[in-house]
Amino acid sequence: MTSDFDEISSIQPIIIQKVSLNESVQTLPDVLAVEEPLEIVLAWKENEKWQQKSLSVTMRTPGQDEELALGFLFSEGLLLDRSEVQKVRVSSLINKVFVEVLPIVAERSKRLQRHFYTTSSCGVCGKASLEAVRQTARYPISEVTPLMHWETLFRLPQLLREAQSTFDQTGGLHASGLFDNEGNLLILREDVGRHNALDKVLGYALKTNDLPLSNKVLLLSGRISFELVQKAVMAGIPLIAAIGAPSSLAVSLAQEHGLTLIGFLRNSHANIYSGAERLV
Amino acid sequence: MTSDFDEISSIQPIIIQKVSLNESVQTLPDVLAVEEPLEIVLAWKENEKWQQKSLSVTMRTPGQDEELALGFLFSEGLLLDRSEVQKVRVSSLINKVFVEVLPIVAERSKRLQRHFYTTSSCGVCGKASLEAVRQTARYPISEVTPLMHWETLFRLPQLLREAQSTFDQTGGLHASGLFDNEGNLLILREDVGRHNALDKVLGYALKTNDLPLSNKVLLLSGRISFELVQKAVMAGIPLIAAIGAPSSLAVSLAQEHGLTLIGFLRNSHANIYSGAERLV
Repeated sequence: MTSDFDEISSIQPIIIQKVSLNESVQTLPDVLAVEEPLEIVLAWKENEKWQQKSLSVTMRTPGQDEELALGFLFSEGLLLDRSEVQKVRVSSLINKVFVEVLPIVAERSKRLQRHFYTTSSCGVCGKASLEAVRQTARYPISEVTPLMHWETLFRLPQLLREAQSTFDQTGGLHASGLFDNEGNLLILREDVGRHNALDKVLGYALKTNDLPLSNKVLLLSGRISFELVQKAVMAGIPLIAAIGAPSSLAVSLAQEHGLTLIGFLRNSHANIYSGAERLV
Repeated sequence: MTSDFDEISSIQPIIIQKVSLNESVQTLPDVLAVEEPLEIVLAWKENEKWQQKSLSVTMRTPGQDEELALGFLFSEGLLLDRSEVQKVRVSSLINKVFVEVLPIVAERSKRLQRHFYTTSSCGVCGKASLEAVRQTARYPISEVTPLMHWETLFRLPQLLREAQSTFDQTGGLHASGLFDNEGNLLILREDVGRHNALDKVLGYALKTNDLPLSNKVLLLSGRISFELVQKAVMAGIPLIAAIGAPSSLAVSLAQEHGLTLIGFLRNSHANIYSGAERLV
């Protein structure tokens, strides 16, 4: 697994003016991270006829739309396995991706929607959110046994940055990197949306039949929200480390599933919120 | 206008372990930014009967749910004016906010939904997103005339950080601050979601009848996405500055509406993407 970020569609040139206190203004070429909407459409056959359902419109950085769509469907609990996907058609010009699936996937999307409304009619809360993940998560998180050395973990941010510097020239992209327990970068994905960067990683893993990611380590360039831990739980990832801070609900979800959660991983320092025993 | 961030519900204590290379592990109390779902429900009277419609469930930091709901409805183009709101009921225990509105608001929510589907059936793209903002924006952005001195602008990040340090002890909150053109902080809002922090600012302005924010300056703690510029356009804000980078679509939207967009505002440096003439 390597990174194959498509620079052509993911960055856009621009002319900017640079201003510094007590210096003259400079006019310079620069690049921006591209942000464009993507519509994810589910397509399936019913009585020999094609049916369609628009699931979501998300703002994303173009380039790996198939991975993004697959990762999104998987982490939402709609897609359990690669075999349920028949074909993925990406229409870049109209920013749509059509995921042709077995009818069971469409069936599941109706059930999940009903479940959501049941929950919300009796009030939404953090507990209901945790419960929803418990009901959809497919892979148990592995036992809490030693997985990685601290020295290795402390090296990861630098490795991520080095790999990112090749791709992110804009300063505007979130990164999501998957490492093995010896600290080798397996895959790196970037996006203007942090959830999209992780969905692309999971979509890649689904495509390559690498799920569950039982002994892998996920490194996030920013902060850790509930949604990011939820996606990691769905993929069976036992250890998340991030450069930024976690939220309260992110920590609760990690603790409930026995997932190791590390924040503020910078300059050979780290805060452990859950599952310290996975580090040696 | 001042900040009245509710520390009780927005931070949560936790015991963490701090690890540093070649040092012994320390167990310490710390605090997390609270993340909890909030359901925004529209309520209106039709033939003497109350009707309800759930509009959105968003992950947010509790504390200013009324402002968040009002700002969300306003920036989505559903609410045009404070007078269309009859009452806001916040049910903190079940994380719901009921916004009682005139029937016209419910009517508008149906129309906008239809409009969205029309757009998406012919393909979504950046241009369609720009067009949707053009059709819903209510206040024109003011003419491009001098608004703020560079020296003043360069002081804003420090002012925001100082005000934030009182509230954000977690490192996990995005901030959105509104300044007058002399660099006085008028209002600061924080949230785990950057769009929520801005919605809270706009909701506050709606409540206090301060819209449009024609000669105000918005400072964002992070990166600038399309969605954030869209919200600023809705409120008539002429100048956005951010510590982070803008996306391609954020720049396009700012240029189209004649809004000044400044990124990488750090250490008395800045990049100008649009509308340099507003700075002296």
